[in-house]
Amino acid sequence: MKITPISGFPEHLPAERIIEQQFLDVIRETFELHGFASIETRAVEPVERLLGKGGDADKEIYAVTRLAEASEGRADSDAELGLHFDLTVPFARYVLENAGHLSFPFRRYQIQKVWRGERPQEGRYREFTQADIDVVDVGELAPHFEAEMPLVIAEVFRKLPVGRMVIQVSNRQIPEGFYLGIGVEDVVGTLRIVDKLDKLGRAKVRELLVEAGRTPEQADQCLALAAIRTEDLSFVDQVRALGVEHPTLDAGLDALAAVIRTGLDNAPGALVADLKIARGLDYYTGTVYETQLVGYESWGSFCSGGRYDSLASDGRTTYPGVGISIGVSRLLGLLIGKGLLVASRSTPACVLVAVNDEESRAVSTGVATELRARGIPCEVAPKPAKFGKQIRYAERRGIPYVWFPGAAGDGDGERGDQVKDIRSGDQVDADATSWEPPTQDLRPQVVRAQS
Amino acid sequence: MKITPISGFPEHLPAERIIEQQFLDVIRETFELHGFASIETRAVEPVERLLGKGGDADKEIYAVTRLAEASEGRADSDAELGLHFDLTVPFARYVLENAGHLSFPFRRYQIQKVWRGERPQEGRYREFTQADIDVVDVGELAPHFEAEMPLVIAEVFRKLPVGRMVIQVSNRQIPEGFYLGIGVEDVVGTLRIVDKLDKLGRAKVRELLVEAGRTPEQADQCLALAAIRTEDLSFVDQVRALGVEHPTLDAGLDALAAVIRTGLDNAPGALVADLKIARGLDYYTGTVYETQLVGYESWGSFCSGGRYDSLASDGRTTYPGVGISIGVSRLLGLLIGKGLLVASRSTPACVLVAVNDEESRAVSTGVATELRARGIPCEVAPKPAKFGKQIRYAERRGIPYVWFPGAAGDGDGERGDQVKDIRSGDQVDADATSWEPPTQDLRPQVVRAQS
Repeated sequence: MKITPISGFPEHLPAERIIEQQFLDVIRETFELHGFASIETRAVEPVERLLGKGGDADKEIYAVTRLAEASEGRADSDAELGLHFDLTVPFARYVLENAGHLSFPFRRYQIQKVWRGERPQEGRYREFTQADIDVVDVGELAPHFEAEMPLVIAEVFRKLPVGRMVIQVSNRQIPEGFYLGIGVEDVVGTLRIVDKLDKLGRAKVRELLVEAGRTPEQADQCLALAAIRTEDLSFVDQVRALGVEHPTLDAGLDALAAVIRTGLDNAPGALVADLKIARGLDYYTGTVYETQLVGYESWGSFCSGGRYDSLASDGRTTYPGVGISIGVSRLLGLLIGKGLLVASRSTPACVLVAVNDEESRAVSTGVATELRARGIPCEVAPKPAKFGKQIRYAERRGIPYVWFPGAAGDGDGERGDQVKDIRSGDQVDADATSWEPPTQDLRPQVVRAQS
Repeated sequence: MKITPISGFPEHLPAERIIEQQFLDVIRETFELHGFASIETRAVEPVERLLGKGGDADKEIYAVTRLAEASEGRADSDAELGLHFDLTVPFARYVLENAGHLSFPFRRYQIQKVWRGERPQEGRYREFTQADIDVVDVGELAPHFEAEMPLVIAEVFRKLPVGRMVIQVSNRQIPEGFYLGIGVEDVVGTLRIVDKLDKLGRAKVRELLVEAGRTPEQADQCLALAAIRTEDLSFVDQVRALGVEHPTLDAGLDALAAVIRTGLDNAPGALVADLKIARGLDYYTGTVYETQLVGYESWGSFCSGGRYDSLASDGRTTYPGVGISIGVSRLLGLLIGKGLLVASRSTPACVLVAVNDEESRAVSTGVATELRARGIPCEVAPKPAKFGKQIRYAERRGIPYVWFPGAAGDGDGERGDQVKDIRSGDQVDADATSWEPPTQDLRPQVVRAQS
């Protein structure tokens, strides 16, 4: 059987996987520092639930059936199942299913694979990893959670070696109130056109707005609002200067100001108020978030989200929420694909313990056991080859140290060990019960590639 | 739409998930200490490859198709895909696909979900997590790797709060050589019957062996061999005492002695030579491993594996390997299901920072930012409720500390903070830039439940 990759289902070589693991570790650690609890949901949901939000989502769903039943022509006795295409639908179902066992407001994170049957293209996969945080509450959700979300994300991106990631924030109430204030009733229709600014440019969007029934003056006002982008609170004055009044606009400006102020206090430089951000027109109702990786703006947002008044509802109780999702695979697809990041080695092993001859392998294994007991990842050489060959074995994998049992002679005939840093060639006496590598050598390092 | 769990697809509540995370962390950390590199493979393989090993595996496979194409009645343009049912088939494919980019012997670990369409029952799931290590080499695999595998597993189980896990080891060459030595030619058929000892008992197995054409004397010899179980090297003498001679038996005894000796040196008490262990009759060719959780022997093995002469082959090159797989979900299903383990809290947060009033939330957020900068997971109270209520919020989640900004008065009018251990009620002055919780409180603890 010929072996070929399956389009849209990327896999990593070990050194690339080390980069992915470090990203996932930083994301998890940061989510946990902010008190988000982990959950994992099953990979499958009833197809009916996956289709629930209407629209053309069905095009993207992978159905799952037992092969035996399919080939026997029997209908599956289970509900018809599909692979989840995001982590929000399963989370909403999990909240409803377990509401009696959860404490609200419930802060959860979820880092899992999702699947979409879309046509694969650069930066778009059929299997990919998302990392989501959400806070969900019963009945009402306090607005301060909308200010809290981007702090978590800012911390993640400050810790990751990705360069500068800017979190663009707006509040859905701002365009809504503004449009109503200038006499535009079709808020969603107008937003949908304005949302195409990045793709089509101002002139074309103005044309489309007028075609859709806005007056030229209204179109100019809409574009003036969308052009406002500030790192501080001055966006409020800039909006005010456009001379539009509406209570929903006031509420939106206050809410966005609170988010930006919290950002300035706790994550200076990470947030920007950007009034053209729209996103998820069908369900977001308050703050919305997008991100831009500086220098790679054309790749679009790697991390997006917002506030929704009804994440889930069982008919009696409504659960409002706010959340952000990091597109881990898309981000790594760019950074690894473009060769922007490299791992210092392709294995966790920090030390290769050399073997003098097969008879003394037990001595080398004993050294490895000592090193591991103190948290130093290591591997025993597979063969008692010439030392030069054993060193090349380490070199090929990027293992920085080779340990030589019994290499150090001493006066009274007892033999000690030596360890060699194969990058510098330095070889020194060492004792497996006390030797420590420098901290930066203990785990593989992920660094920006030299370009 | 009614929400009901899907049989065989278990999900955890947050406190249970914390137990699972700690298990996965210990497993990963130990695998890495032993120099295994992580890989992840896509969830899907061509159905043709999944069916490759023949037999009745097809009953267990979940087929994956694009819903849109299925409903349009079009054949899928992709190869027919199925969810992987183990991690060995995808690993073998990965090795063949990437052989040119891997360094051999290649040590990899893989911790992922797998799916089987089997009928769910206690301890058997349709979606579950496996944690595998394998070493694979080109052409030949050195026997010392067979001794190394159980050291890794012994270390995992020594670190996990599971009680005593015994690793039972045998070598396929021992029964093979022994059977040939007593004139039994049908080695696999005989092993297949002896393998039923635990289920059927000695008398019944003896009956079956005789029915299958063994002489009563041969049957007794087979049973005598299978009864040998020693923690040290004395199994060799016990086998010798049965008076059977065959070169394959000698080779098997030497190989098993080497494995047990390495275990005695590096993981005393963890291994036992148990000559009735068979497993995977179709593909294992050397050492085989099983485990027993002491006190829960009837649950069967939670961790098994062995050596196979041909993990993968592309026709020209053969890749022999040795591996073990931990059934993480099965193990947790027992330990969590029986209430044997509990997590000390249901959130990573170690501290709840109280909020005096909504106007001063920024002060509380500032405290949280300070604590997080020093690696202390925390959460800011969702509401400026009465302190009793904020403490109960922490209590309900098991968060051990509540931080009160400005609770400490001092002489010159400056106000400091206090922190309360809500388990003891002790409340002391504290500074967010220097306070540290005791190490055991920093992360949730997983402990054996009091019975």
